[in-house]
Amino acid sequence: MSYERDNIQRMQGYTSGEQPADGDDVIKLNTNENPYPPSPRVDQALTNISGEDLRTYPPPTAAQLRRAIADRHALDAGCVLVTNGGDEALRLAITTFVNPGGPIGMAEPSYSLYPVLADIHDSPVARIDLDDQWRPPRDFAHRLNEAGSELAFLVNPHAPSGTLMDTDSVSQLANDLNGVLLLDEAYIDFVDPSLRHDAVRLINAFDNLLILRSFSKGYGLAGLRLGYLLGQASLIEPMVTKTRDSYNVNLLNQVLGLAAFEDQDYAARTWERVRADRRRLHAELQQLGLDAPPSQTNFLLVTVPFNARRCAQELYLALKDQGVLVRWFDTPLLKDKLRISVGTPEQNQRLLACLAALLI
Amino acid sequence: MSYERDNIQRMQGYTSGEQPADGDDVIKLNTNENPYPPSPRVDQALTNISGEDLRTYPPPTAAQLRRAIADRHALDAGCVLVTNGGDEALRLAITTFVNPGGPIGMAEPSYSLYPVLADIHDSPVARIDLDDQWRPPRDFAHRLNEAGSELAFLVNPHAPSGTLMDTDSVSQLANDLNGVLLLDEAYIDFVDPSLRHDAVRLINAFDNLLILRSFSKGYGLAGLRLGYLLGQASLIEPMVTKTRDSYNVNLLNQVLGLAAFEDQDYAARTWERVRADRRRLHAELQQLGLDAPPSQTNFLLVTVPFNARRCAQELYLALKDQGVLVRWFDTPLLKDKLRISVGTPEQNQRLLACLAALLI
Repeated sequence: MSYERDNIQRMQGYTSGEQPADGDDVIKLNTNENPYPPSPRVDQALTNISGEDLRTYPPPTAAQLRRAIADRHALDAGCVLVTNGGDEALRLAITTFVNPGGPIGMAEPSYSLYPVLADIHDSPVARIDLDDQWRPPRDFAHRLNEAGSELAFLVNPHAPSGTLMDTDSVSQLANDLNGVLLLDEAYIDFVDPSLRHDAVRLINAFDNLLILRSFSKGYGLAGLRLGYLLGQASLIEPMVTKTRDSYNVNLLNQVLGLAAFEDQDYAARTWERVRADRRRLHAELQQLGLDAPPSQTNFLLVTVPFNARRCAQELYLALKDQGVLVRWFDTPLLKDKLRISVGTPEQNQRLLACLAALLI
Repeated sequence: MSYERDNIQRMQGYTSGEQPADGDDVIKLNTNENPYPPSPRVDQALTNISGEDLRTYPPPTAAQLRRAIADRHALDAGCVLVTNGGDEALRLAITTFVNPGGPIGMAEPSYSLYPVLADIHDSPVARIDLDDQWRPPRDFAHRLNEAGSELAFLVNPHAPSGTLMDTDSVSQLANDLNGVLLLDEAYIDFVDPSLRHDAVRLINAFDNLLILRSFSKGYGLAGLRLGYLLGQASLIEPMVTKTRDSYNVNLLNQVLGLAAFEDQDYAARTWERVRADRRRLHAELQQLGLDAPPSQTNFLLVTVPFNARRCAQELYLALKDQGVLVRWFDTPLLKDKLRISVGTPEQNQRLLACLAALLI
């Protein structure tokens, strides 16, 4: 007999991007990692940690890192939850704010983990199609409210398109939604500073707004699993004191995460390089006939024209054969597209050379 | 308004043992950490890791560590799930096998996190009192089945008493229970090898048995958050492919955990020292009039006699004043007891000296 819950038995798990084995000579442009390593202070912090430091339980709420994050965002520590990667934050929001079977709202397409987390919770998904510029339609909040959504996920800048919704529109959404809005800012560090985009300032205004940040991309620490949630204390406190695993963030994450976070200058320089590389890569992909919407992230979503020599799936497979991994999604809205992470200039050049040979 | 689910709003969170701030000159005998540091191979592994290694996502299922664990237990890798501490394993068992509102069985007393996890899931707890030797009563399985338990937690050796239930009794329980039995072996490494205790061999016989192991105690790595579950592939597979967070175990955990796990000789020497220290500490506590049941763990649960100069709570507070932390539980069955972790010989001597001064 099977002991699995029926909804678990029925569901499909999340498919993560391929992780090539160590030593494979592969250019990895498929999981949106930062092409640049984390701050040298992380290496330094690593040399200062010994096995003996790991003998005892870690500070349960990551107090020192939590304080540093709060200070940087000019919030109280009570408005910050440190998590074992952004994934934990998404799950905790569901656990804490959504009754089993309660609907969860999201845009289509978006991060493919969201509906998986809803399935685990046995929650129906209220899925609203984006418009042709990857923006939520005007009646987005209204339709999510109609569906009874207790929580809505919105990734901004948007994945997989890379486009940015302005702060006023986010504010309007938080205002209009009946349930909690989780704004997933996994890629926020790559937004052009000249846009002066800032949703964190909305936290004081809305008691239903959670903002997710990640160390995976901006700080070059995907291997560490570290993220955090910002929100009013009334939203954060039950996750800190009740629903998270009792020691959710290990000691190394706390120490190394703090080292990276305190070196904002270094991180900002990697973001600026990614932005410059993004502009160049975008222009050169267009030269090859591969259009992409304007991206404020570290990836580009290119459309392969219907009359190209190879379709998106063929390109994906051919690139893989040549040791260049990009992401292709087998869904109706995305099957003619490739999501390509911005790599180092050398990686981008190799990608472009492969694409040119395949397309021209 | 509050966005918390009603059951979350009503519940109390888990209270972890006190974690004194760095630099406090405190003897920590309150959270059952190993008094000895992890293998020197952990230090060595730490020096071999660089920030660049953390730039990319970790192997999603911790393949190499998983393989090593499977080999050691003579199981297939499909019978192993590596987790972010034992806590994650407990939570995943609930998420995967218990319908929201479905009853969860446990013995009273046991690890105080179990009912908290049930509360988060909005599950009623079927709580069966242990007998006066801390053993489940004869009709334990029957009563849990009557209550409709979909999952039962059993910690063995038992916490907080330290007593061990033999493998035949575990086997009988797994056989009699209708639901899944999660056997929490967090303290198994401290069992006398002469007892030839081995519940892992039951896995092939029972499709409803999960066994939890932890690196926190046996391997001196509480700060790392690393544990694993063993069970038939039919139980393990849905947790690996569906319900765990997609990158639940970070790269450092995988690398450092493997380094510690491969040095079984070192770990076994720490276990043997803890056993020897446990015997001595037990005898000396008895000299002070503080009886404890026979322990197969790295802690002792002493009863403070009703006619002692100070009651358990007073002793706990007085010890704390003197920089010696032990654990006191404010519950009917435990309020006359103290749970004391076995420390180094020096730590144990300081504890005994403090206790002698307070009691005699």
